[in-house]
Amino acid sequence: MSAVAPRPVPVALIGLGGVGKAILQQLLSPPLSNKFNLVLIANSKLSLSLPLPEGQLNPNNFLPILEQHGKPLDVSSVISVLQTHPDGNGVLIDSTGSDAIPSLYPTILGMGVNLVTPNKKGFSGDQSLYDQIQSLTFPNSSTLAYGESTVGAGLPILSTLKDLVETGDEIEKIEGVFSGTLSYIFNEYSKPEGSDVKFSDVVKVAKDSGYTEPDPRDDLSGTDVARKLTILSRLVPGAPKLEKGAFSVPTQSLVPPALENAKDKEDYLNRLPEGDEYFANLRAEAEKEGKVVRYVGVIDMKTGKVECKLGKYDKDHAFATALKGSDNIISFSTKRYSPRPLIIQGAGAGADVTAMGCTSDLLKIYERVRTLPTPAKTA
Amino acid sequence: MSAVAPRPVPVALIGLGGVGKAILQQLLSPPLSNKFNLVLIANSKLSLSLPLPEGQLNPNNFLPILEQHGKPLDVSSVISVLQTHPDGNGVLIDSTGSDAIPSLYPTILGMGVNLVTPNKKGFSGDQSLYDQIQSLTFPNSSTLAYGESTVGAGLPILSTLKDLVETGDEIEKIEGVFSGTLSYIFNEYSKPEGSDVKFSDVVKVAKDSGYTEPDPRDDLSGTDVARKLTILSRLVPGAPKLEKGAFSVPTQSLVPPALENAKDKEDYLNRLPEGDEYFANLRAEAEKEGKVVRYVGVIDMKTGKVECKLGKYDKDHAFATALKGSDNIISFSTKRYSPRPLIIQGAGAGADVTAMGCTSDLLKIYERVRTLPTPAKTA
Repeated sequence: MSAVAPRPVPVALIGLGGVGKAILQQLLSPPLSNKFNLVLIANSKLSLSLPLPEGQLNPNNFLPILEQHGKPLDVSSVISVLQTHPDGNGVLIDSTGSDAIPSLYPTILGMGVNLVTPNKKGFSGDQSLYDQIQSLTFPNSSTLAYGESTVGAGLPILSTLKDLVETGDEIEKIEGVFSGTLSYIFNEYSKPEGSDVKFSDVVKVAKDSGYTEPDPRDDLSGTDVARKLTILSRLVPGAPKLEKGAFSVPTQSLVPPALENAKDKEDYLNRLPEGDEYFANLRAEAEKEGKVVRYVGVIDMKTGKVECKLGKYDKDHAFATALKGSDNIISFSTKRYSPRPLIIQGAGAGADVTAMGCTSDLLKIYERVRTLPTPAKTA
Repeated sequence: MSAVAPRPVPVALIGLGGVGKAILQQLLSPPLSNKFNLVLIANSKLSLSLPLPEGQLNPNNFLPILEQHGKPLDVSSVISVLQTHPDGNGVLIDSTGSDAIPSLYPTILGMGVNLVTPNKKGFSGDQSLYDQIQSLTFPNSSTLAYGESTVGAGLPILSTLKDLVETGDEIEKIEGVFSGTLSYIFNEYSKPEGSDVKFSDVVKVAKDSGYTEPDPRDDLSGTDVARKLTILSRLVPGAPKLEKGAFSVPTQSLVPPALENAKDKEDYLNRLPEGDEYFANLRAEAEKEGKVVRYVGVIDMKTGKVECKLGKYDKDHAFATALKGSDNIISFSTKRYSPRPLIIQGAGAGADVTAMGCTSDLLKIYERVRTLPTPAKTA
């Protein structure tokens, strides 16, 4: 029963954008640096095996070192490094936004390499890919795959839903504001106390403040919310099958009818005020009913519908009163949490909290592969 | 890599009150019934080894069967059953409210038996007991001890705090309404829109509706909140040491000065209106400042204070607007979740959700002791 220091778990990190850098920072700092052994980092072009002969990697020097010493990225050799590591049970962190790596998840998992990812593409893709991933992970195999930060970043959304379902609760409705960008835009444009700001002005401020994707239509299309809903609904027993993943989710686009023919991002941004009347009418209609407008994702098990849409909410509803800034809010109505739902709220985007979702997944893998064996029974 | 059905984990359940019965119900139903093997149930007097020769135990028949076939409870033989079970890695669920079993946690864990409990007494007791428990659990030993439902019942409070801390976030403040009973009482007695109901009337309705302990002073003393704060603060690096556990937490009692000399529960309940003026003044004072009154627990890392007290909150604060019924609400302000906190809200008491906290802990143990070994490496 004496304490034996468990071996650090080998980790490779692919994708060194904002989230990837924050993951690197968390991995290289206590309390994680003793539990994980970073054996490789890579961006979309170059990969670098660690440790370096010339010394320590740190969050400030990794980029020039990668550029100087990196070799062209070859995903199959990354998998091989993790698969053949003497400490076993390696973990690949896919922090890219690519479609290519998620399509390799079955290959990766099939080789016994564990997976952690903030990339929504794999878990919200075709049902066939999702089913393959499921068949290759616990309890069907020993391999583990986690994606907590694909929904709500570091907020405990997926783990809570799993707990509810796995302990036998019945989901009635999941409803929430799942996009930090759309949360910010609607919190500004439709306030409980009223507002007459123009929709186009709010979108422009959001873009200039870095709250939106470079092309704001990527947020306003609702696709990001549809991906999160897909990931959630696949954890709900009896929810509709989404054969084409997020593309099977009815999703209201916020690119107003007048702007659907915009040529490109610049044209769209210039012509944004043409949509203001459309949104002003929406808001006026809601205000007449004493309500605010929010862009929400809903999984309703009574109607069997999974959808992303504009919704009107009473001025004293949590979606009207509780939200500020770019917070996410997710409400679980279940047999046990009824009539009052379980609610989780907070920043649902940002590099540090998204990275946290990944490193907390890593800790779950650490605990599962590094729990010490049961002490020998006394005779 | 073929799927091998892992063996069910042996479980003994001591304590068959409301929460114990709900745990039994969840354990005997899918999806948990295949993962756990209930080998023994016990109340404070009798214990019964399972399976029964005469057939199935179910949530409706266990009590008469226990009374007919049970043997006098002997905790050391319960531990021995779990310790010597051929499937190993047994779990004791302490669903009692006793002080006696928590004092045995070091013995239980020291014998390699895992522990799940909704009983706050162990984790909120003397620091020396807590330190012993820590020294005998992962990562210091292979044995696991979980008590998620000791704070906020099934709400993911402790797991979220652990994730924040273990991934390197820094806790600045934890603040919340931690008692369903006190949440109900203050939501009724001090409303954002104003209220002139008498405090004594609210307490009486709460008692008659079964929201309070049989003696409402057990809730109004604040001790239950102090226990929860103790459990939380022990997970926060740098928080003050609480040598006597909950008894080291400065705790404002809501038994008003006029009633401190009440002889017994009946005397207290009869004389409750004598305290109304005290509470009416409190509320009037808050209303003058545009605020409501709430009974909160606070861990403030800036001031280094852990305390349970009456607080005044702006009428648009989440503690004023978001709370209804007997909901708990807990807010984590951290380096990452700042300036907007991470908030979790929902029913923080009740047999089903408290049992859920325990069964989700059981699932964590299941996953940690039943993760299949890594597939053999390909040559």
